[in-house]
Amino acid sequence: MDTDQPKSREIMTDLYELTMAASYFEQDMFAPASFSLMVREYPPKRSYLVCAGLDPLLDYLESFHFHADDLEYLERTSLFPSKFLQFLETLHFTGEVRAIPEGRIAFCDEPLVEITAPVMQAQVVETFVINSINLPTLVATKASRCHYAAGERRLVDFSLRRTHGMDAGLMVARASFIGGFIGTSNVQAGKIYDLPIYGTMAHSYVESFDREIDSFRAFVKSFPDNTVLLIDTYDTLVGARKAVTVAREMRQAGQDLRAVRLDSGDMVQLSQQVRQIFDEAGFPEVRIFASGGFDEFKIQKILTAGAIIDAFGVGTKMGVSADAPYLDMAYKMVMYNGRPVLKLSSGKVSLAGPKQVFRQRDEHGLFRGDLIGLLDEEVVDSESLLETVMRDGKRVLPKVPLPEIQKRFKEEFSLLPETYKDLEGNPNYPVKITPKLQALQDQIKREISEKELGSR
Amino acid sequence: MDTDQPKSREIMTDLYELTMAASYFEQDMFAPASFSLMVREYPPKRSYLVCAGLDPLLDYLESFHFHADDLEYLERTSLFPSKFLQFLETLHFTGEVRAIPEGRIAFCDEPLVEITAPVMQAQVVETFVINSINLPTLVATKASRCHYAAGERRLVDFSLRRTHGMDAGLMVARASFIGGFIGTSNVQAGKIYDLPIYGTMAHSYVESFDREIDSFRAFVKSFPDNTVLLIDTYDTLVGARKAVTVAREMRQAGQDLRAVRLDSGDMVQLSQQVRQIFDEAGFPEVRIFASGGFDEFKIQKILTAGAIIDAFGVGTKMGVSADAPYLDMAYKMVMYNGRPVLKLSSGKVSLAGPKQVFRQRDEHGLFRGDLIGLLDEEVVDSESLLETVMRDGKRVLPKVPLPEIQKRFKEEFSLLPETYKDLEGNPNYPVKITPKLQALQDQIKREISEKELGSR
Repeated sequence: MDTDQPKSREIMTDLYELTMAASYFEQDMFAPASFSLMVREYPPKRSYLVCAGLDPLLDYLESFHFHADDLEYLERTSLFPSKFLQFLETLHFTGEVRAIPEGRIAFCDEPLVEITAPVMQAQVVETFVINSINLPTLVATKASRCHYAAGERRLVDFSLRRTHGMDAGLMVARASFIGGFIGTSNVQAGKIYDLPIYGTMAHSYVESFDREIDSFRAFVKSFPDNTVLLIDTYDTLVGARKAVTVAREMRQAGQDLRAVRLDSGDMVQLSQQVRQIFDEAGFPEVRIFASGGFDEFKIQKILTAGAIIDAFGVGTKMGVSADAPYLDMAYKMVMYNGRPVLKLSSGKVSLAGPKQVFRQRDEHGLFRGDLIGLLDEEVVDSESLLETVMRDGKRVLPKVPLPEIQKRFKEEFSLLPETYKDLEGNPNYPVKITPKLQALQDQIKREISEKELGSR
Repeated sequence: MDTDQPKSREIMTDLYELTMAASYFEQDMFAPASFSLMVREYPPKRSYLVCAGLDPLLDYLESFHFHADDLEYLERTSLFPSKFLQFLETLHFTGEVRAIPEGRIAFCDEPLVEITAPVMQAQVVETFVINSINLPTLVATKASRCHYAAGERRLVDFSLRRTHGMDAGLMVARASFIGGFIGTSNVQAGKIYDLPIYGTMAHSYVESFDREIDSFRAFVKSFPDNTVLLIDTYDTLVGARKAVTVAREMRQAGQDLRAVRLDSGDMVQLSQQVRQIFDEAGFPEVRIFASGGFDEFKIQKILTAGAIIDAFGVGTKMGVSADAPYLDMAYKMVMYNGRPVLKLSSGKVSLAGPKQVFRQRDEHGLFRGDLIGLLDEEVVDSESLLETVMRDGKRVLPKVPLPEIQKRFKEEFSLLPETYKDLEGNPNYPVKITPKLQALQDQIKREISEKELGSR
């Protein structure tokens, strides 16, 4: 058991995906199936969703295959016939993916991703599909709310230490950037996603020096062009005055102190006092950076109360989407072998058939409402949101750079009516079902009732 | 940017860990430092913590080194001098780790892990240390609450699809097993942690057949020894009667239907009705397995209301610890170069000095209260909780198999007074500070005030 080794993602899956696959194999069921990924209900206070996570999902689908040592493990479980495991060895994803692009705004019930492939393929990727879209969408949405609360102020992702594991940290850095953040403290995310990285010093650094001011001077010596001094280790205002001393020394040396960071205490009062200390000392250009328990609510609250802050480090509460740490996201079969299907489980009825989402705008260009319809329907004066992004298991569109995805998010966000941006939530954006899609549901439900519920 | 590649964990870190390291290097600061990892406050309704995550952390520390391509990336950032990057190339973790073993019960303010190493080493691992203990401890605690609510009933981790990324899924499978679960749906976790894996079929499997009962028969054909039929796709009671038909066919073939699964609806009423259907049909041995939105609260509620359920699949709400998705966990410097240190930031004062936790028991052997004291203190009639687990960067104790860790948890849990197990929380377990540790705090605070706060 060496937990350090890279782990293949194909068996990062629920066992039932494989037992179902084995049964499909035994039953010779290889017909195409379509599945829809959607969010069934808004989490508390949410009124929209920012799509994120698609590109890493496409990476996964393009490279999908079972590794030899995973198949050996499956053999050791004695659950599966050898013939099936031999078949798994050859399995790749050869299907089609349609999706709402990353950075766009979507709403509950709308299919975010639809996958059509031979049933075993479309089924066996379920766990990864949900896992790879759920957190990024959750976090991009949370980040967009922080972005809204912060206005023009800059936001940096500081969440890595308390994200749920390390790949969550990567997903959060990427998704928060999509939702309007300027970068992250996460060095690995900087490397693999080419994101700006930020960070300077912790309290422990200050404490490791005999005197606080010595730590400030030492840091300036190492990073004269990029100094943000953390001033609350012992007392924020005393720390601010020491930082002024250091800023003067820097100025004499032809350098500029970039900012100070506050990480505790009454942010409204302290930020005003620290601003005043620097302004009075002749350093109006030194910025105030704040961190410590921020989310959209705390940002809005202290700014409304008059805090003078130029940028925020937003950590844990954004990185785990603390007030809503999961989406009620499901991946449901909607068609098998040309036959639309749905489930009737109480409270969890799904919509049969592959679909399209049609967005309509008002006379100012703002989003007015969406229609969910059949895939091949046409709805006048509307834009179709789902695009074909993969065919025969290969991407059909080039990768979109993250800054472009962020730009798309910002454009979309500017078209969302203000009422849906309220941090307290207004989950009433109109999403309706077309008459044709409704007729299909009625028909399928009738057929199922006749066929399945006779002995009720 | 190939996001599929395994990512080295050494740069899964906050940038400031590296900027501080660079400054320590430049200042020639290589003296030993000690850091304490602790939880500052209970999340809502929690009254104890189940320790988890240590073994993967020790794996990380033992293999810690910077990879060539990561150093190339750091060079490209232009943030660091070459000499420092050359030094990083040679950096390994050579320190000492003391910790409360996994599966033991601990409380707020108690150091869960203490690391002593040359300051750069002890500092640079901070992000990973917190990340690797935070979620497992959170989830083992949540799992233990589910275990308490479920009594003798079995619990299986079903959370992978909505955990925050894939390595969270692994951490959750491992931590929930420590907290009393019998296994997981997560195949990769089964492979690398040697955990029992569970799972049979989804609604989509049922829907892909022309008739529900055809899907039941097909599954039995593939998995006659391990059949759990999902019966709520269209109507739970009608589904139960079809399952009885299949159970009769199985009995004639010398096989046994193991269980049925309910995934929606009124679990109290449905479980009673389904139990009755199987009992009356002569199948009292067929078990009822329930899933769908369970956590400790829902388990307790439906069992109190009379639900007849043998086992639960517990998913999202446990896997993200939905009602408390993070711990207020911090990793604080407590000593540098023999000098005890602390910070005074408002609301976040830390305790100076390396420590030990002493547990005392009452006359029945139950936990009576803990004392946090100095590392070298002796407290009569107490057990010291932190053990030395790593010296000179190498484990000094063999790895403990997960079933033994689970056993340790169950023993510990049986010694925790009932009042602290209440799901509504009773965070009043007595944790006190020894007079010697208190005296040290008073002395250090006085010294800091004199040295640092003169100009207040």
